[in-house]
Amino acid sequence: MVPDSRPMSYSRGEITTFVMPHMQNVLGDLFGGHLMALVDQAAAVAAIRHAGGPAVTKSIDRLDFHHPIPVGALATCYATVDYVGNSSMDITVEVFSERVSTGDREHTHTARVVFVAIDQHRKPVRVPRLVPETPEEFARFDTARLRYEARRRR
Amino acid sequence: MVPDSRPMSYSRGEITTFVMPHMQNVLGDLFGGHLMALVDQAAAVAAIRHAGGPAVTKSIDRLDFHHPIPVGALATCYATVDYVGNSSMDITVEVFSERVSTGDREHTHTARVVFVAIDQHRKPVRVPRLVPETPEEFARFDTARLRYEARRRR
Amino acid sequence: MVPDSRPMSYSRGEITTFVMPHMQNVLGDLFGGHLMALVDQAAAVAAIRHAGGPAVTKSIDRLDFHHPIPVGALATCYATVDYVGNSSMDITVEVFSERVSTGDREHTHTARVVFVAIDQHRKPVRVPRLVPETPEEFARFDTARLRYEARRRR
Amino acid sequence: MVPDSRPMSYSRGEITTFVMPHMQNVLGDLFGGHLMALVDQAAAVAAIRHAGGPAVTKSIDRLDFHHPIPVGALATCYATVDYVGNSSMDITVEVFSERVSTGDREHTHTARVVFVAIDQHRKPVRVPRLVPETPEEFARFDTARLRYEARRRR
Amino acid sequence: MVPDSRPMSYSRGEITTFVMPHMQNVLGDLFGGHLMALVDQAAAVAAIRHAGGPAVTKSIDRLDFHHPIPVGALATCYATVDYVGNSSMDITVEVFSERVSTGDREHTHTARVVFVAIDQHRKPVRVPRLVPETPEEFARFDTARLRYEARRRR
Amino acid sequence: MVPDSRPMSYSRGEITTFVMPHMQNVLGDLFGGHLMALVDQAAAVAAIRHAGGPAVTKSIDRLDFHHPIPVGALATCYATVDYVGNSSMDITVEVFSERVSTGDREHTHTARVVFVAIDQHRKPVRVPRLVPETPEEFARFDTARLRYEARRRR
Repeated sequence: MVPDSRPMSYSRGEITTFVMPHMQNVLGDLFGGHLMALVDQAAAVAAIRHAGGPAVTKSIDRLDFHHPIPVGALATCYATVDYVGNSSMDITVEVFSERVSTGDREHTHTARVVFVAIDQHRKPVRVPRLVPETPEEFARFDTARLRYEARRRR
Repeated sequence: MVPDSRPMSYSRGEITTFVMPHMQNVLGDLFGGHLMALVDQAAAVAAIRHAGGPAVTKSIDRLDFHHPIPVGALATCYATVDYVGNSSMDITVEVFSERVSTGDREHTHTARVVFVAIDQHRKPVRVPRLVPETPEEFARFDTARLRYEARRRR
Repeated sequence: MVPDSRPMSYSRGEITTFVMPHMQNVLGDLFGGHLMALVDQAAAVAAIRHAGGPAVTKSIDRLDFHHPIPVGALATCYATVDYVGNSSMDITVEVFSERVSTGDREHTHTARVVFVAIDQHRKPVRVPRLVPETPEEFARFDTARLRYEARRRR
Repeated sequence: MVPDSRPMSYSRGEITTFVMPHMQNVLGDLFGGHLMALVDQAAAVAAIRHAGGPAVTKSIDRLDFHHPIPVGALATCYATVDYVGNSSMDITVEVFSERVSTGDREHTHTARVVFVAIDQHRKPVRVPRLVPETPEEFARFDTARLRYEARRRR
Repeated sequence: MVPDSRPMSYSRGEITTFVMPHMQNVLGDLFGGHLMALVDQAAAVAAIRHAGGPAVTKSIDRLDFHHPIPVGALATCYATVDYVGNSSMDITVEVFSERVSTGDREHTHTARVVFVAIDQHRKPVRVPRLVPETPEEFARFDTARLRYEARRRR
Repeated sequence: MVPDSRPMSYSRGEITTFVMPHMQNVLGDLFGGHLMALVDQAAAVAAIRHAGGPAVTKSIDRLDFHHPIPVGALATCYATVDYVGNSSMDITVEVFSERVSTGDREHTHTARVVFVAIDQHRKPVRVPRLVPETPEEFARFDTARLRYEARRRR
């Protein structure tokens, strides 16, 4: 059974992959489309974990490319559910690139993604309430609520 | 030589592909990450065409998933450069899914993407001015300028 | 319902993709096998559109490699149904490579492909008659009929 | 050093792969484009072996799809160089599908492919003479010469 | 019907592929994970052939990387069933890299893999007895039995 | 500069991916070859981290398939360097499958992999000494030494 509420920390998700040569663009960096696929997977982990069932991408609110990720780097996407509506979930994905041999890490991308929980007929279903517990989580919750409300006004 | 200005119609770009089974998510539709890769490629066509040289993804301002695209459909992404700054280009990508056997088409996704023109050292370079010519192009230009200015205020 | 006949212009199909690094052969150009896959997809668009239902590759009558397509180019395949038998469709696919930054285009490949319309049990089914309307279409129709008849004599 | 002539049997080539689910078309069989990629690889083995250096696809003279290959089958492509010009090589590729659990095999495709030997500047280079040795090889040689001569007349 | 026993030579399997650029690691050689996938496919051919039905990987007992395989080489994996238990099959896969233009071949990898035959409910099923017939086959059989027995003692 | 020694905890590595439909075998589970590629990537993270430079797969000492991983599951590979020689590193990779919607996890695979640190000419280079610090790390260290020594006796 899916509970009525879940702590924010419950649904953290992570996708990690080596950037292999077949993932490169013509400039020799991770192809932007491939990066987006990793972001989408990481967000899906957090969304499905919070919802306790299937969920699909509803929108990307923003995705900022701060730095390219070179071939050979380790790319890690961290996803957190920051705010929820009835069936929607506001998710942040932060992407880091690591040069494994030295441990040098760089924050390369930030994404704000919205997923919707669905049932087996692909109808939206209610998700558990989201419970922030730490100051950092309350801050993320409040910021995401602003994005959520701005989106609803549009 | 890259000219000082280009008409808006010059840089229209298009990416078209059949949705093959290997592109599906666990629900049997086009995987969201793969859709984003197609969107990114279409935007790159328009950006490189307008800039007359290499360009890289700077951000996704929005990407809305209106409808899923089923396996077997034809997916087409239409990209237009709608506004430009010094080196940035505001690009809209509209995605359509077509059931080829019947010709039924559906507007499935809308994306607002920002690319930046770069030189061989990956430094931003100036792009040609963008010249709208039809009422529809002027409308797109004005709307994109609002997005551009809102983004600069953030 | 599939009509008794269709104008030749109805079924035009197009597949467009950026040639990404993962598609290259050891010489740094688009791998011939990958090119063939794009040609097959473009022909499938035209075939399914004309037939109004599923269709499968029956043969490649010819495929000429005029020029290689470099990584980073935009490859576009244009397919037209040029002649039809009871269930077979003679399709021409012309492939163009474009250097997007300059707009330079080159005609790189020409393919003559035959598809067969099938029903749900994979049995051949009758396709609509093909109606050429312009002088250029009549010319394509006549040329394709010669190929069709030569094939039947073999 | 590349010799002046090579026996026909020297350059036989073979590509064998399991048909994995990611290679399927929407009908659940090996995608035609993927089959063509395997055919091209097998022909490349024979061409490079005979030429003793790089070679590229010049044309497909014919490729007949006799039967589909289901997912889970073992697909094997056998390639032989059947005739050579100065720098061109006429190659036949026969494709077989095997249901490995029973050993049932089916001849599914026949392809006639032309490759051209090239040097490091991609200029055509002379290939060794081709020496048939058995009655079956002489028959293949004579049939391929007819195709070669018909192609030159066009 | 699957027979009570099969000669060792019956189940020999082979997978052959060109090493394409998309298969490379950051050092420009065949990615180790891709090599393992080819080894697994070759072992599956031998296992399914001997069992006369589906079989799944149970373990890799050893896989030694003697030499890297460069991009552009032809990689061939030869698999033999060397020993069988009730439902398990001890399989050896030898991998060779060939520079096709010169015919130079190198023995690059040796793998010892164990597969288990399964029925439609994924339960292990009995496989035919394995009958060595030549001195070389008897030697392989005896060596594999030692590995089998050592594994059972662990 | 690479230090003389590193604590065991320094080099822990992790690869995490959703099992997408294109990764499946004909039974609908994660293809064994694809699993091995993930294992190899996870081991490479740990190896390169400990060595502070490039490292290549030398052998798989064992890889046990305890359970299949279904499509749609989240697969995570945890890698630790457990013992080192002059230039070799004994690495353990534990693979877990998680049904994200419920959080149910299963330990599916265990691998023992050996990597070798190399310099830019691909010659083996000395790696830092490995320093276990907790009782659990000492236990892993001792077990791995037995494997290392058994391997050297062969």
